[in-house]
Amino acid sequence: MRARVLIRPKQGILDPQGLAVEQALPALGFDGVSEVHVGRLVELSVRDPSQLEAMCERLLANPLVEDYEIEMLDGSSA
Amino acid sequence: MRARVLIRPKQGILDPQGLAVEQALPALGFDGVSEVHVGRLVELSVRDPSQLEAMCERLLANPLVEDYEIEMLDGSSA
Repeated sequence: MRARVLIRPKQGILDPQGLAVEQALPALGFDGVSEVHVGRLVELSVRDPSQLEAMCERLLANPLVEDYEIEMLDGSSA
Repeated sequence: MRARVLIRPKQGILDPQGLAVEQALPALGFDGVSEVHVGRLVELSVRDPSQLEAMCERLLANPLVEDYEIEMLDGSSA
């Protein structure tokens, strides 16, 4: 089954990439942009989706400073 | 409006992070994982969603080696 993991800096944790994007956009002529957050996207095929949470905790995300969200793709549910 | 941009290495472009994850998982006891790709996730609030594609082309993604996909969140459409 195909899964997608969205990994984001936790609320309140510094997000330097998000800040950099937010500051660069007006310089390129793009106005009206706010609350920019940059995270990671992991897409993978798994035989056993029940392992996904453990994979996030142990390798994909850093649970101290990142939140993660698991989405099953192709209509399958976790 | 809240938008999400998913940025992935183009098909056929080397994805060293994906490879590293794919090789690390079995070592941690997670089997049956394949086709791992690691990309970036950008979430932002925009006043004018029609600018998102230009933002991707000019700053968020590297169109030479990355594909991007724009999703509007909170039920709004691009």
